[in-house]
Amino acid sequence: MSRKIAGPEIERLVQLLSRLPGLGPRSARKAVLSLLKRRNDLLLPLSDALQQAVEKISECPVCGNLDTVAPCSICADPRRDQSLIVVVEEVGDLWALERASIVSARYHVLGGHLSPLDGIGPEQLNVASLLTRAQSPEVKEILLALNATVEGQSTAHYISDQLATIDVTVSRLAQGVPIGGELDYLDDGTLAAAFKARRKL
Amino acid sequence: MSRKIAGPEIERLVQLLSRLPGLGPRSARKAVLSLLKRRNDLLLPLSDALQQAVEKISECPVCGNLDTVAPCSICADPRRDQSLIVVVEEVGDLWALERASIVSARYHVLGGHLSPLDGIGPEQLNVASLLTRAQSPEVKEILLALNATVEGQSTAHYISDQLATIDVTVSRLAQGVPIGGELDYLDDGTLAAAFKARRKL
Ligand SMILES: [Zn+2]
Ligand SMILES: [Zn+2]
Repeated sequence: MSRKIAGPEIERLVQLLSRLPGLGPRSARKAVLSLLKRRNDLLLPLSDALQQAVEKISECPVCGNLDTVAPCSICADPRRDQSLIVVVEEVGDLWALERASIVSARYHVLGGHLSPLDGIGPEQLNVASLLTRAQSPEVKEILLALNATVEGQSTAHYISDQLATIDVTVSRLAQGVPIGGELDYLDDGTLAAAFKARRKL
Repeated sequence: MSRKIAGPEIERLVQLLSRLPGLGPRSARKAVLSLLKRRNDLLLPLSDALQQAVEKISECPVCGNLDTVAPCSICADPRRDQSLIVVVEEVGDLWALERASIVSARYHVLGGHLSPLDGIGPEQLNVASLLTRAQSPEVKEILLALNATVEGQSTAHYISDQLATIDVTVSRLAQGVPIGGELDYLDDGTLAAAFKARRKL
């Protein structure tokens, strides 16, 4: 950019928005213009919603979900099947399963997958807390709903090994999940079929 | 969405972000996850930057540009050519011209183009203030840098008529602007060439 436009505040907004996935510098500028042009119905509510998010949303200490209450509303819901814990890599995967109403159980969000080259080992993920939860008497099954990627599957393998000495059934989604596919990109039907045909490991 | 996810605060964030140009519901969800995951380096600064925008950025009372000072830093800059006013439809067009360092003059942002079917007449645009500015003795030329669309050109025609009784040269960008093209999408070279070859109306 050969000349600065309109002061550092706007530049900073463009720069921050362009860090969001799916927004490049051009679309970030369009977004900022749109925000500034629609002050009352977009800029003010978004500013307020982000403020609320900063103040209220945090990671569930039990499962790693994001919510305004702790434990999260899913962990706190007594109507959910307490015998099954569905393990996912990211909160977005949890959202995908919830949107598709695949299962009414509880979750465990790892926060990613094992990636030794990036320095991500079991300690960097929520693995220890999963092992603790798995030992709770009401828990009968741990479903490893991880991405069908190399990293996701090697993470599933590692966790499955760790769970071997604990008296729970370990399962994974059926092979309906396409190879290389990420959960968040699947249609509800595929997710539902993969859930129903889940296999014991 | 068959089931609500993670409380109204997150739903509201997703909903608001999906109103930004370029973000659909899926990418808005990804953006929200990214924000919540990168609390310190993204969520907090963005929340702060939007707060700053709400408090500090407003429309320049002279030219319609967006800035934190009024008049805007362009209007207030004495080094800019005071004899030329470049008329654009939107602030994004002003940014495009500034980024390309096309001209060091002052601007006038109409806030759109004439669109009788949408109820947008001259009164809905910053036309009256342009006519007032055009009568100022130091102003010698009004460059109508409007989009090469039907609406942009009919707006240029209308303004040119209104300026007929005022002692200024009215010009438009050269035909280097492709038919149907929008300024904001042109490369700097095309913009520069179109500026240099601008014609008297
Ligand atoms: Zn939870
Ligand atoms: Zn101004």
